[in-house]
Amino acid sequence: MSHPHPDLGLPPVLPTGALRIVALGGLGEIGRNMTVFEFDGRLLIVDCGVLFPEPDQPGVDLILPDFDYIRDRLDDVEAVVLTHAHEDHIGAVPYLLRERADIPIVGSRLTLALIESKLVEHRIQPVTLEVVEGQRRRFGPFECEFLAVNHSIPDALAVAIRTDAGLVLHTGDFKMDQLPMDGRLTDLGGFARLGAEGVDLLMSDSTNAEVPGFVTSEREIAPVIDEIFRNSDKRIIVACFASHVHRVQQVLDAAEQHGRKVALMGRSMVRNMGVARDLGYLRVPGGLMVDSREIESWPPEDVVLICTGSQGEPMAALSRMANRDHPIRIAEGDTVLLASSLVPGNETAVNKVINGLTRWGARVIHKGNARVHVSGHAAAGELLYVLNLTRPSNFLPVHGEWRHMRAHARLASLTGVPDEHIVIAEDGVVVDLIDGRASIVGAVPCGYVFVDGTSVGDVTDVALKDRRILGDEGFISVVVVIDSTTGRLTGGPEIHARGSGIDPDDFERVIPQIEKALQEAAADGIADVQQMRRLVRRAVGRWVSDVYRRRPMIIPVVVEV
Amino acid sequence: MSHPHPDLGLPPVLPTGALRIVALGGLGEIGRNMTVFEFDGRLLIVDCGVLFPEPDQPGVDLILPDFDYIRDRLDDVEAVVLTHAHEDHIGAVPYLLRERADIPIVGSRLTLALIESKLVEHRIQPVTLEVVEGQRRRFGPFECEFLAVNHSIPDALAVAIRTDAGLVLHTGDFKMDQLPMDGRLTDLGGFARLGAEGVDLLMSDSTNAEVPGFVTSEREIAPVIDEIFRNSDKRIIVACFASHVHRVQQVLDAAEQHGRKVALMGRSMVRNMGVARDLGYLRVPGGLMVDSREIESWPPEDVVLICTGSQGEPMAALSRMANRDHPIRIAEGDTVLLASSLVPGNETAVNKVINGLTRWGARVIHKGNARVHVSGHAAAGELLYVLNLTRPSNFLPVHGEWRHMRAHARLASLTGVPDEHIVIAEDGVVVDLIDGRASIVGAVPCGYVFVDGTSVGDVTDVALKDRRILGDEGFISVVVVIDSTTGRLTGGPEIHARGSGIDPDDFERVIPQIEKALQEAAADGIADVQQMRRLVRRAVGRWVSDVYRRRPMIIPVVVEV
Repeated sequence: MSHPHPDLGLPPVLPTGALRIVALGGLGEIGRNMTVFEFDGRLLIVDCGVLFPEPDQPGVDLILPDFDYIRDRLDDVEAVVLTHAHEDHIGAVPYLLRERADIPIVGSRLTLALIESKLVEHRIQPVTLEVVEGQRRRFGPFECEFLAVNHSIPDALAVAIRTDAGLVLHTGDFKMDQLPMDGRLTDLGGFARLGAEGVDLLMSDSTNAEVPGFVTSEREIAPVIDEIFRNSDKRIIVACFASHVHRVQQVLDAAEQHGRKVALMGRSMVRNMGVARDLGYLRVPGGLMVDSREIESWPPEDVVLICTGSQGEPMAALSRMANRDHPIRIAEGDTVLLASSLVPGNETAVNKVINGLTRWGARVIHKGNARVHVSGHAAAGELLYVLNLTRPSNFLPVHGEWRHMRAHARLASLTGVPDEHIVIAEDGVVVDLIDGRASIVGAVPCGYVFVDGTSVGDVTDVALKDRRILGDEGFISVVVVIDSTTGRLTGGPEIHARGSGIDPDDFERVIPQIEKALQEAAADGIADVQQMRRLVRRAVGRWVSDVYRRRPMIIPVVVEV
Repeated sequence: MSHPHPDLGLPPVLPTGALRIVALGGLGEIGRNMTVFEFDGRLLIVDCGVLFPEPDQPGVDLILPDFDYIRDRLDDVEAVVLTHAHEDHIGAVPYLLRERADIPIVGSRLTLALIESKLVEHRIQPVTLEVVEGQRRRFGPFECEFLAVNHSIPDALAVAIRTDAGLVLHTGDFKMDQLPMDGRLTDLGGFARLGAEGVDLLMSDSTNAEVPGFVTSEREIAPVIDEIFRNSDKRIIVACFASHVHRVQQVLDAAEQHGRKVALMGRSMVRNMGVARDLGYLRVPGGLMVDSREIESWPPEDVVLICTGSQGEPMAALSRMANRDHPIRIAEGDTVLLASSLVPGNETAVNKVINGLTRWGARVIHKGNARVHVSGHAAAGELLYVLNLTRPSNFLPVHGEWRHMRAHARLASLTGVPDEHIVIAEDGVVVDLIDGRASIVGAVPCGYVFVDGTSVGDVTDVALKDRRILGDEGFISVVVVIDSTTGRLTGGPEIHARGSGIDPDDFERVIPQIEKALQEAAADGIADVQQMRRLVRRAVGRWVSDVYRRRPMIIPVVVEV
């Protein structure tokens, strides 16, 4: 197997007839999926998603792929193909379209409807092209064929990309539910046909490559939900992802059967389910829905609330209910159903919500104690089917952290893909497909681009490092006013501190040391503001370290008057 | 069941003949276990542990119980009984002994040896009393009987406390391994005898009350470890808790059998295993151990490294190996075994370590992919045994979050404890046992006491809130120097910002607005420094909010000269 090397240099010029593949996100991480294909000077992009920040990226709203690699070549982009409408596949589209508004956006009907409703909020009117499974469309030198795949959102597609360099199959996110809610199966027949034709490179979803066996059918959740409804004589609250149309459908079906009204809560839930209903992906029986603002006026046993917040998001209704900070007051006998995965990183937040709801008397049902969720990603057993059906000449595991990509590579090896044809790459690593052989040829810069408020990219790693120090230790600022002619102290030292955990009265004790340092400086003829700052920082830093064993940020400010 | 109420008032004076129970930690949380028993004006404390901070408690090293409730009554304390030597049961002892050094510390041989070796670092020489299972000891009005329990550290004890108010059984942390490594079983016969005598109140470990069934025997890990050793032809690194003597024993046994040398790494690992070996709890074959500094000089296939860092602690050796920041260079074919639980809250950190190690080619084995860990806490099936054997008149679930205490209360109810005799309390809630009936009678203040560096309690909730804002948004400080006679600006505005993610050059754009606000103030005759600060804060705050949609902390400093 060929592994990336930290010392990779820039790649050579792409030879004629070769296909270049660069993931700007999604390789070595779960999220921010974006792959750039290049052939004959033209580019095709598959997916353009966001990554959600981790605790060591404080204050960051979203993380985007770095568009630098394509920024000078936006006019070469033939199209962006979106495999499905999850945020980690479409969330960065608004930011890409800010750079060139008329890049054609290609996707299935639901995918386009959901990205369009999202772009309305960004006041962007995209150029779109709807495709359907079975279709072939040419974008410059890229002949794309779309194949149905089953996932945790309807209308997902895999894409086969043919160029003169060969046939690449990119699965997108998928699983292989054999009894899907909408009857739309992952097109294994199509995969087999491509395998017979000859797949030169398979790029396949690694998310669940470490999970043995097979993902249970979505359908098997229905009896569990039914039993929960049967055993509940108070309010039922269901939290799930705002894009999981089939999960919501199952709750609507149960509500109809048990004679409960349904209210939706959460902006994205209301928006997405509206789109899904309008396009016929969600069946809503007449008279079933009520406005969430009316829900308090219904008897608890007659309603179901479907809301967001299953990941413990602190501002979502569910967290606020857990904290008694919401008009809906959880009471003894209420049932709360977390019908979703637990996204890694959210464990602590979700645990808080479960404890809060339990405290007020709710019975909380989650994937840890009942089968109320199935994954949207193929497990190892299913991945083996795909490998065996497509029999790829080369394999590049995508959509996963290192542990997932390595596990997927092992599966490929077990099915007979020669180790030297298995390429494990991470973001920015350049893979060329030349003469039927995929290999790593270099790497391009490819970092995180942070979105914070309205700004994109202004928050840097340096700012994040400062935030981590400030968040752990707080700061102490020391202001001194110096007479610019005499160099003598004429105002201050004035000390302000926040988050340091040091009693403000204690600062009196360091002021003489600051004054002494400045007097000595003046005596030595030091009039340089930078040097004075250093002296102040050193005096305060030593004191804090000696007395408190801490290292808050110290900000010396020297103002000359 | 009787639930705590947020509006509980202070408790009444304790009636004669009644026993009062107040948990200062461990009820509504996992950690910081400390329970105060009061009878006839005298106090007995069971355990005195620490809680480890969560991400929303940045910069905090440890969280202690609040000793305020007993601070004025330290002379009434007869003893502190330690059930076992885990940090969440003994970690706060050094801080309690700072307040009164001669409180007798009661525990088993290993428990005392480990707390003593810890107290040496705090330069405290405690007054100790060693007890052994089966013994009875009287501490003032408290007649204590100690019973053997099995847990993930040797020599753990439950304690039965007899007073004239009745018999209370406190299990401490326990499980019921029926084939324990050291042959020391949880004393179910003793529990049954107490049940026959009449347990007036059972306080039992709730940690695993949500987990159905039974915990597997520690012994069943052995074949898994053996197979790992058999299939490894490179370096083996095992990370586990520094107090898990039996887990380390299993690794030593495997190493001996497979002809590998063993090195220990990590201060607490070396210290605790030294104590355990000296006292005969750990069997170390002669010639097995090598110094960890020598390990690089041995062929990889001849060594095992046992280290700390299984929770992803960033400064531990294991994390540094994952980040290529350690002399030991992980290489293709190395095996890393995380033979420990995954403590809630550490998921992200551990995932980072697994990915880092995997990236460099290690095979990482953990409880998610092999049986390399069993829990130290009884699961629901075992808890039912204890409830059925002791047949308590009253039940108080302890050691757990709300979800665990509620689940445990349901188990008690199922075994026939009347709901009105099941008391669910949280930290600070006062439970009195009067005439054979336990009930909630009030609550006492009981907050978190944060340890940060050398200080205890100086870091408050306000400081933590500041840290969260600073960590998310950074700060902007604005310094202006004002002539105290004219009220005119004579220096600044000088702006310093850290972590705000705003380009420093941009600040030029807000300076005119600050100057304008101050000029208007001067024209209006405003000379009050507080008012000027407010004006500066408002001008900058509006600008940041309008332009960047952010809310960094704004620190206006007005210096008069």
